[in-house]
Amino acid sequence: MSITANDPTRKTWLEVPENSDFPIQNIPFGVFLTRDDIITIGTRIGDTAIDLGALHQLGYFEGIPLTDDIFLQDTLNDFISDGKKTWRLVRNRIAEIFDTSNESLRDNEEHRQVVLFTLDEIEMQMPVQVGDYTDFYSSKEHATNVGTMFRDPDNALLPNWLHIPVGYHGRSSSIVPSGIPIHRPQGQTKPKDADEPVFGPSKRVDFELEMAFITTDANHLGEPIPIDEAEDYIFGLVLFNDWSARDIQTWEYVPLGPFLAKNFASAISPWIVTLDALEPFRVKSPKPEKKLLPYLQSTGKRSFDIELEVFIKPENAEETRVSKSNFRHMYWNMSQQLAHHTVNGCPVLSGDMMGSGTISGPTPDSYGSMLELSWKGEKPVKLSDGSTRTFIEDNDTVIMRGFCQKDNYRIGFGEVSTKLLPVFEPKKK
Amino acid sequence: MSITANDPTRKTWLEVPENSDFPIQNIPFGVFLTRDDIITIGTRIGDTAIDLGALHQLGYFEGIPLTDDIFLQDTLNDFISDGKKTWRLVRNRIAEIFDTSNESLRDNEEHRQVVLFTLDEIEMQMPVQVGDYTDFYSSKEHATNVGTMFRDPDNALLPNWLHIPVGYHGRSSSIVPSGIPIHRPQGQTKPKDADEPVFGPSKRVDFELEMAFITTDANHLGEPIPIDEAEDYIFGLVLFNDWSARDIQTWEYVPLGPFLAKNFASAISPWIVTLDALEPFRVKSPKPEKKLLPYLQSTGKRSFDIELEVFIKPENAEETRVSKSNFRHMYWNMSQQLAHHTVNGCPVLSGDMMGSGTISGPTPDSYGSMLELSWKGEKPVKLSDGSTRTFIEDNDTVIMRGFCQKDNYRIGFGEVSTKLLPVFEPKKK
Repeated sequence: MSITANDPTRKTWLEVPENSDFPIQNIPFGVFLTRDDIITIGTRIGDTAIDLGALHQLGYFEGIPLTDDIFLQDTLNDFISDGKKTWRLVRNRIAEIFDTSNESLRDNEEHRQVVLFTLDEIEMQMPVQVGDYTDFYSSKEHATNVGTMFRDPDNALLPNWLHIPVGYHGRSSSIVPSGIPIHRPQGQTKPKDADEPVFGPSKRVDFELEMAFITTDANHLGEPIPIDEAEDYIFGLVLFNDWSARDIQTWEYVPLGPFLAKNFASAISPWIVTLDALEPFRVKSPKPEKKLLPYLQSTGKRSFDIELEVFIKPENAEETRVSKSNFRHMYWNMSQQLAHHTVNGCPVLSGDMMGSGTISGPTPDSYGSMLELSWKGEKPVKLSDGSTRTFIEDNDTVIMRGFCQKDNYRIGFGEVSTKLLPVFEPKKK
Repeated sequence: MSITANDPTRKTWLEVPENSDFPIQNIPFGVFLTRDDIITIGTRIGDTAIDLGALHQLGYFEGIPLTDDIFLQDTLNDFISDGKKTWRLVRNRIAEIFDTSNESLRDNEEHRQVVLFTLDEIEMQMPVQVGDYTDFYSSKEHATNVGTMFRDPDNALLPNWLHIPVGYHGRSSSIVPSGIPIHRPQGQTKPKDADEPVFGPSKRVDFELEMAFITTDANHLGEPIPIDEAEDYIFGLVLFNDWSARDIQTWEYVPLGPFLAKNFASAISPWIVTLDALEPFRVKSPKPEKKLLPYLQSTGKRSFDIELEVFIKPENAEETRVSKSNFRHMYWNMSQQLAHHTVNGCPVLSGDMMGSGTISGPTPDSYGSMLELSWKGEKPVKLSDGSTRTFIEDNDTVIMRGFCQKDNYRIGFGEVSTKLLPVFEPKKK
């Protein structure tokens, strides 16, 4: 089925600001609370939010096999379970409805009243209930930087790194959408010269610039997903800030991996941009440096050219861009990640989220974490207000943005923005 | 509120076999499919399964604040969200209904017909939808054995082990109830003398004897749970077999922890035994060998005396007991685990599951995994049919059982039984 929603010549009767991340060719999916306190599934064109639940009730999706309440839900999980064919039919139909030549909704004031919202009339929610969240470690530059800093510059990559897309399980319950503030975590750390660990606020709170993909129901217990089918099970992507506490991590992570250093919070951009919408921006992954086992051999263009930026905004000051990277730097692509994740028969379900790992580029201004940008605190990063940062300070807001662009055709992700509040103070009883 | 359900003198009008794990003092909670293909929440007394949905519809829970459909669900998550006070009211009421002196249901043939089932009329399901699953590593004997085998017998424990209940995130989607067969996983391993990794079936599939506790909604993002409140958020426990593939684990787990070596399957006993039912079997945890940071200092009896056994049953042969351990061997208790898990503000929700880690005792016959019992394959374990095992073979069934006993008072968990099938063969297309 052709993805007519991607037609680059299509224009919409809605107003779309120049350079918007959300032209009519994007049509992402999200969940929002409306001015009437109703939760619904929606999409966005320009700065207009569109209530898909209302559109469906009014009959605009006639002919597409959808249950009546598929968009009247507080997560996208059931819609994602409907599968790729249905996602395409719906995106194509939305493109038609908002095509400049289509009068049906355009000229129906009453319908427009219940379907369209300005952005300040809605509040974005978590788009999916995340069953399981997995984080990979798929940027060679990031793995090399970390290995150089903490192990051996001459053998920075561990022996398995070039053979397997290394990954580990993360915590779903602490994934929040953009805009939700988080607290500086407390925990155990072991200062270098101390004999015993101490307890207190983390002194090395960091972001990690990642993207995450969201899956549909892919396989049953025991059944691997072949690499060439992997993309059939990927619904779309979001920006992902994998908040980290470096000092807690150092003390806890051997031998079973990061735990409290990561599970206090991760944040995502709230609009899921479909894999279909990213189609024009396919690129090849870097050539593997080792011969891969057959289940990991991927052909064609399985990665995407997505520009990524990270900004730090101190309280009462302007934001400063501290990193500029690109998703295409990833050594391992999503098809390889999903084939690896399931090769042992691990079941992948609708709403599962898989993070890329920190996306660092080859140059020091493209590193995806403060750990790397400040080289474990040795090189403070200058902000435009004159202050410097080695890690994130209380009341700083970290903002990540991402978009694909070719000439005037731009598909963006919006942003994930999270303010770091001071340590949580329990209310006096 | 007193736990009248625990009254050791109470007798029931239902038949209960001698030495049953499920006397009227147990009253565990589970989910089952009935002969009419209806999913419901239930309990069990002796060998009788009791439909709590039907009991509630018939008015037997009058006076307890419960929504009408609280037991007509396919998971216990909502009931668990109702909190400890409600769990107690319901367990106390069930004890009354089935008390030998209570005529209301006993003498109502019509009601009994819709409420009571024999075990062969039902099929046990997953009792909860597990949001997040965490596995700890809390047996000192197990950590010492593993450290001795793979690192240094003189420094078997890593430096953090005596200071923090080490844990890591696991995969929820592959947790199955007792009775569901699993497949031998395939994956990458690196044979000792090989230059490159190879792909194939794991040659070292193992069980891990664990227990897991199930939580209710405990805290919000950012908010720690004080150790003295931790038990308020624990609903109950199940037996837990954390299936593992040792050869896959060896190659993949540095630096981010076990991943495919674990996430192909974990299995649980289907009846959740409440913390309340275990009350008479409280014991103290082992004395900490290091001074703990205040948030981990626990007082009183925070562990439980639960006898645990593991059996291997080859195809067409009798089962052989290969291990006999006890939950009380755990160095870190559940209160410490939950306080640690949330000290950084990580949210814990209803249905979350937390594994203890392999429960090994001090003697070689009490080790909780084949890795330890066969000392990484060097000492084959004899079975009663004359065969030997170093790890688990195709078509073996691994069975774990657990119970508390004091004189004639016994509270048991039933069993978790899982058959290991050969590698999954995809159907020809």
